Amino acid sequence: MPTPSFSFQLHHQDAHCAARRGTFHTPHGPVELPAFMPVGTQGTVKGVDIGRLGETGAQMLLANTYHLALRPGAEAVALLGDLHQFTGWSGPILTDSGGFQIFSLSQQAKVSEQGVEFRSHIDGSLVQLSPEKAMEIQQHLGSDVAMVLDHVVGLPCKPERVAEATWRSVRWAERCLLVTPRADQQVWAIVQGGLDGQLRRQSAQASVALGFRGYAVGGLSVGETPEQMYAMLDVTVPELPVDSPRYLMGVGRPEDLLEAISRGIDLFDCVMPTRNGRNAFAFTHSGPVRLRNARYRHDTQPLEKECPCLACRHSLGYLRHLFQAREMLGPILLSIHNLTYYQRLLAEARTAIVADRFTQFHQDRRAGWDLGTGG
Amino acid sequence: MPTPSFSFQLHHQDAHCAARRGTFHTPHGPVELPAFMPVGTQGTVKGVDIGRLGETGAQMLLANTYHLALRPGAEAVALLGDLHQFTGWSGPILTDSGGFQIFSLSQQAKVSEQGVEFRSHIDGSLVQLSPEKAMEIQQHLGSDVAMVLDHVVGLPCKPERVAEATWRSVRWAERCLLVTPRADQQVWAIVQGGLDGQLRRQSAQASVALGFRGYAVGGLSVGETPEQMYAMLDVTVPELPVDSPRYLMGVGRPEDLLEAISRGIDLFDCVMPTRNGRNAFAFTHSGPVRLRNARYRHDTQPLEKECPCLACRHSLGYLRHLFQAREMLGPILLSIHNLTYYQRLLAEARTAIVADRFTQFHQDRRAGWDLGTGG
Repeated sequence: MPTPSFSFQLHHQDAHCAARRGTFHTPHGPVELPAFMPVGTQGTVKGVDIGRLGETGAQMLLANTYHLALRPGAEAVALLGDLHQFTGWSGPILTDSGGFQIFSLSQQAKVSEQGVEFRSHIDGSLVQLSPEKAMEIQQHLGSDVAMVLDHVVGLPCKPERVAEATWRSVRWAERCLLVTPRADQQVWAIVQGGLDGQLRRQSAQASVALGFRGYAVGGLSVGETPEQMYAMLDVTVPELPVDSPRYLMGVGRPEDLLEAISRGIDLFDCVMPTRNGRNAFAFTHSGPVRLRNARYRHDTQPLEKECPCLACRHSLGYLRHLFQAREMLGPILLSIHNLTYYQRLLAEARTAIVADRFTQFHQDRRAGWDLGTGG
Repeated sequence: MPTPSFSFQLHHQDAHCAARRGTFHTPHGPVELPAFMPVGTQGTVKGVDIGRLGETGAQMLLANTYHLALRPGAEAVALLGDLHQFTGWSGPILTDSGGFQIFSLSQQAKVSEQGVEFRSHIDGSLVQLSPEKAMEIQQHLGSDVAMVLDHVVGLPCKPERVAEATWRSVRWAERCLLVTPRADQQVWAIVQGGLDGQLRRQSAQASVALGFRGYAVGGLSVGETPEQMYAMLDVTVPELPVDSPRYLMGVGRPEDLLEAISRGIDLFDCVMPTRNGRNAFAFTHSGPVRLRNARYRHDTQPLEKECPCLACRHSLGYLRHLFQAREMLGPILLSIHNLTYYQRLLAEARTAIVADRFTQFHQDRRAGWDLGTGG
């Protein structure tokens, strides 16, 4: 077992906005912040082997407790080592608690104060999960960061339901803290509160009062507009401690990442680079490129000349052919490109913050995306 | 364009059988023989990027003229460079002529002396192909080795139909030779004759009389037993020149490769490593391993300890999980493993031949496969 050695260092805050440059040290190595975590839902980032994943510049991986607990089961993962051995990813790993998936994927989720009961989306079997059980499962998985179990509601939602779920999440978070932790695993809180600014502030304050090592903003990117999401960050982030990492869960588009970074967020995860990649949608500094477009048929240019990824060693014509011919290599290469794109964007953001020019960088990137030379 | 520099060197023939160790030099580099070519049907070996393909030990790639001519079209490939630029594979490439696919995949193939007319299996459009057109397409594709257009019949088949197709193939081969070749492309013949030993001999003799740079044995692995196939090699190979490469098309299982090598075959191609890999079937020195088997659920061992491939850095339990969870990485990793297995087997064969111990090596491998400790 690696030596438990967690710490968070804040190196610099941009002079013109809340963007910050830090390092999160874990037993499996450092994560330079702000950072983007690729999503390894079922113990693999879809279509990308672990060596290729490292080549994208990824530092930390997210894995889904919900999926792994249902298949192959947390005990099975533990019998095969832990998530690091299981997946072959020797760097840091964060596991979510399963809350989000329970409320989005499972059938007939029934919430009580004790926990949640739901039917597996795989075989319909009845599963019970409590805050304590969620901690136990994540300890089996052996992630570096475990998230508290939260009660997530979709938006829009009645105010009283949002408030009930938010305060239940706070009480569940407290119960998660009472579980004896692994020495090599941190437990992070999740701020809820829907689109109610006051509730968001209260949830953040209550979480901070409980005392966690890191804080996530959850329950966003679930149906609201980008502007609503940014407004929630505006009220939430100032409530969070300066000396802990801040993680915006499940977000998002490149523009969302830069908006959130400018508001002081350090860490992200999202399936968008891989999911869009599988559907022939590439992210570039000139906006999205849809590879199925016939205009690329004879195009000898790469997606992005300056991109070092495998996909960009091929012509657009070849990449288009792969999707037209429904070859696996199309989704593979475009997933790699998009993951590389996100990592390049975050690396550029880190450089810009240290030079106090994140705001300018943000404007430049936005101008490039808006130009939209892609097809 | 690389310097045209083809040659065939025969280094050694095993003292106890017809197995031979040679080198086939091409403008895109040497191929150490005997060799196995992975199949890049549509300009990609399914699920394996070009870097990973190189890591398997592959030296030469096969691409299917039929598939590429229908989509994206030979002209489209030529506009994007040639097959080497298109696929990113800088090593040697062999293209088949499309004969086999026309007769196995297309609809309503109508053969005349002039050529063959068929409907595309993709969009039903009517396509005409002649020996001359097959050469022209392969010149567009820019492969190192182009194959003559042949008339393939499935087995079993009426003797008179086999004879007709065989002699037509000889006449078509002669027409292929009359097409002005690319300086950087060889044209190889294909021996036909079904399961008729005398017809096979005659087809070989007629092909040799025409004078090609390399000779393939075609129309096998199309429904006959392994023993019938080996019998056809027994009568055909002795008719082929010692100083030219000999290629057994579309074959096959590891045991078929060793049987054919012992009869003097130098070159192979087959979709089996990738197709079986996609279906959770792994080749090993202890026989096949079927990864969906529940016995591997908690198995921390790799597929093969001595295998250097990516899949073998993972546990059997993880590989099984990938297939159970229908993750792309399962097919990807097992395709890589199987391709690596074939390349390792051929590399071992080359070493054994030089040491005059191919027969012993063949027996040892067969004993390992028969043990069948895999599941």
